[in-house]
Amino acid sequence: MSVHSGAFALHPRLAADTVALGDLALSRVLLINDAHYPWLLLVPRRDHIMELIDLADAERAQLMTEIATVARALKEATACDKLNIAALGNAVPQLHVHVIARRTTDAAWPNPVWGAVPARAYADGEREQLLNSIRNRLWNT
Amino acid sequence: MSVHSGAFALHPRLAADTVALGDLALSRVLLINDAHYPWLLLVPRRDHIMELIDLADAERAQLMTEIATVARALKEATACDKLNIAALGNAVPQLHVHVIARRTTDAAWPNPVWGAVPARAYADGEREQLLNSIRNRLWNT
Repeated sequence: MSVHSGAFALHPRLAADTVALGDLALSRVLLINDAHYPWLLLVPRRDHIMELIDLADAERAQLMTEIATVARALKEATACDKLNIAALGNAVPQLHVHVIARRTTDAAWPNPVWGAVPARAYADGEREQLLNSIRNRLWNT
Repeated sequence: MSVHSGAFALHPRLAADTVALGDLALSRVLLINDAHYPWLLLVPRRDHIMELIDLADAERAQLMTEIATVARALKEATACDKLNIAALGNAVPQLHVHVIARRTTDAAWPNPVWGAVPARAYADGEREQLLNSIRNRLWNT
């Protein structure tokens, strides 16, 4: 595919750390492989975008709509105590928005999750149950 | 003032850690008193709002517009390497959005700023110069 096509390619590090749930109108929705926290990423399917302010106005508005949609689904699926939402990108330059379900009993609370403790693998079936619960809320409505 | 008035009151901890720049249509804009990073907060002037998803749709869209406006102004004023934008609220429940100018040479890079190093006081005049530079971009256009 031509480099001029604007084709979207997920950053290899994001691909390695996640499993895909599906695509919204703008963003790919991913789950981070860390059972410490139900932790989603939204990645707008646009190439060469590093910052929120690099998106066109209409795309940024759409991203906020999708952040809210995903945050509501995650809160409903997990009955979490708090949502953490962030676009950092210091390590992986491709724009990605973290939507994280926090509990006051989780491994990092009340600190942010980044770098707090090593990732923990999901138990058998635990990840699929979470994925299904979120997918049902995002796409079966 | 009646508790039913919906009057906005800044959380005391946010007030203690910041200096106010001014108000946009929805949000109060604050500068965190930490010279390690040019670090702004947007606080929607609505009471009893803890999460992005607690805002009405139109307010959330307006907040995204204001995040972009403030992020552009901060990037122009500081020529930073990266923007970090986040709504966490684990410690202070009033909804507030961090907009932080990061440099690859700053005290926490590439980690998030929260809890990384103790806050450093601004030198004489340094904070006012930054405030003026951001205010000129936000309100004198």
